[in-house]
Amino acid sequence: MPEFKAVVRVMIKKSILDPQGRAVETTLKRLGHKNLENLRVGKHIELFMSGEQAEVEKQLAEIATTVLSNPIMEDVSYTLEALEPA
Amino acid sequence: MPEFKAVVRVMIKKSILDPQGRAVETTLKRLGHKNLENLRVGKHIELFMSGEQAEVEKQLAEIATTVLSNPIMEDVSYTLEALEPA
Repeated sequence: MPEFKAVVRVMIKKSILDPQGRAVETTLKRLGHKNLENLRVGKHIELFMSGEQAEVEKQLAEIATTVLSNPIMEDVSYTLEALEPA
Repeated sequence: MPEFKAVVRVMIKKSILDPQGRAVETTLKRLGHKNLENLRVGKHIELFMSGEQAEVEKQLAEIATTVLSNPIMEDVSYTLEALEPA
């Protein structure tokens, strides 16, 4: 069965305050890194899936938008990459 | 001054158990998604930096390896992308 590597990226929407990102940015500025702004922290999720490509794509879209992210507060994007058979 | 978008990806090392990833994987399997494995959750950090490219690159490497990740437990990778002047 074909194998795939999926990567899902979840970020808090730009219109919503990201307290973790704000905290990291403040810390970096206190350490002397004044030339940075708009730091945001999101999730990077990797998983391996097996199955037929069309089905796996559909399944990944469903997982990414309903389980791995909250569509009210977060933006989600994902990529699927076919792995070479070993 | 040139502007850059930096993306830093932090993942727990493969040799170390990732409890959050394990929990998400178990949940997805319970929901019927049996064809997945090795799910891992890491951090995706975006920030905007300004300055001369060589200097910003050096600064990003330092921030990524010393502040944004713990080199004992985590792997870190980063990319820097120059933004078009507005």
